[in-house]
Amino acid sequence: MNYREVEVAGEYLARLETGADWRAEIEELADREDVDAGWFTALGAVEDAELWYYDQDEQEYRSVEFEEPLEVASCVGNVALLEGDRFAHTHAVLSRRSGQALAGHLNAGTVFSGEVYLRAFETPMERERDDVTDLDLWL
Amino acid sequence: MNYREVEVAGEYLARLETGADWRAEIEELADREDVDAGWFTALGAVEDAELWYYDQDEQEYRSVEFEEPLEVASCVGNVALLEGDRFAHTHAVLSRRSGQALAGHLNAGTVFSGEVYLRAFETPMERERDDVTDLDLWL
Amino acid sequence: MNYREVEVAGEYLARLETGADWRAEIEELADREDVDAGWFTALGAVEDAELWYYDQDEQEYRSVEFEEPLEVASCVGNVALLEGDRFAHTHAVLSRRSGQALAGHLNAGTVFSGEVYLRAFETPMERERDDVTDLDLWL
Repeated sequence: MNYREVEVAGEYLARLETGADWRAEIEELADREDVDAGWFTALGAVEDAELWYYDQDEQEYRSVEFEEPLEVASCVGNVALLEGDRFAHTHAVLSRRSGQALAGHLNAGTVFSGEVYLRAFETPMERERDDVTDLDLWL
Repeated sequence: MNYREVEVAGEYLARLETGADWRAEIEELADREDVDAGWFTALGAVEDAELWYYDQDEQEYRSVEFEEPLEVASCVGNVALLEGDRFAHTHAVLSRRSGQALAGHLNAGTVFSGEVYLRAFETPMERERDDVTDLDLWL
Repeated sequence: MNYREVEVAGEYLARLETGADWRAEIEELADREDVDAGWFTALGAVEDAELWYYDQDEQEYRSVEFEEPLEVASCVGNVALLEGDRFAHTHAVLSRRSGQALAGHLNAGTVFSGEVYLRAFETPMERERDDVTDLDLWL
């Protein structure tokens, strides 16, 4: 296991813009405040969503799209540098009117409403290709 | 996007009371410590649950009730003032014995056991009616 | 409700080891940094998972095993002492390629990739048998 102790640089509450992209909004917040390492949790609702699932055998992401309004029941993620840009690695649990839950890596989703708590850290984190998983991992 | 930097006023660990209401317990913690702005994550189990789903077209909440014991696999939310009272906006992911997940806005649920981490901020947050979504949003 | 104000002792970002056990990795981080009370959120993927559901009537855990790769869409938990050892109480929401969500108390799961934020507190927390629920609870 790789780990590091971190020092907080700032903490933020944000309300995401209706109609914007969920992940892009979090990355915009990181850009505005120069957050090169951060951790967030969030909740809200989206008008649609593109979830990714990582095929661990084929080492490729598989996409599933949901063209329907969904609650964001849980969202956990972090901000790090990926090829020089700030990338918000975002996982989410969504739900339908019946209460049925859908979940995965949230690549995109149109914000209906979104509330985010972001904690920024002093030392930048950078993602690099990991040979074992073929994912871009930090530390 | 609207956002603000926040200063921490205190942080708390709480164990919710068996038989009490999940959301009311979090609001009681906020009341006891005068938390007018806060962020929490939680886990545990409930004896039943009322989940809400926001109908984005009709702009109305739809309720689904589950009269059965469920794990609280994830709970994310925040505390703000709503018409002068402290309101805990609470989203949760619940699960059945089969592992099946249910999720949404948790309006109510009888606590079986609950563990909460609440982070309180200095500047109060107030929810106000948003014209676009017809929701009570902060910032 | 029982609760306490807590003081932070340190905060950590960790990348879990591919092939190791998810919960054991978090407990190892706690052991290395002498964390006797902590709170974490996490995300990633596992190669398999054993979820527990607490049967509130029989007061026994029921286990369900999933022998398949799953995203860890959300993970919330805490660290406390249980009979002298550090125990990571871990709830998680997992997902399949279709986006279907599974959730519960994560007893075990083989890490494919895992990213964890752990917040450590000054005062140790100890779990003790609770007569009402027959669970090991803190505070």
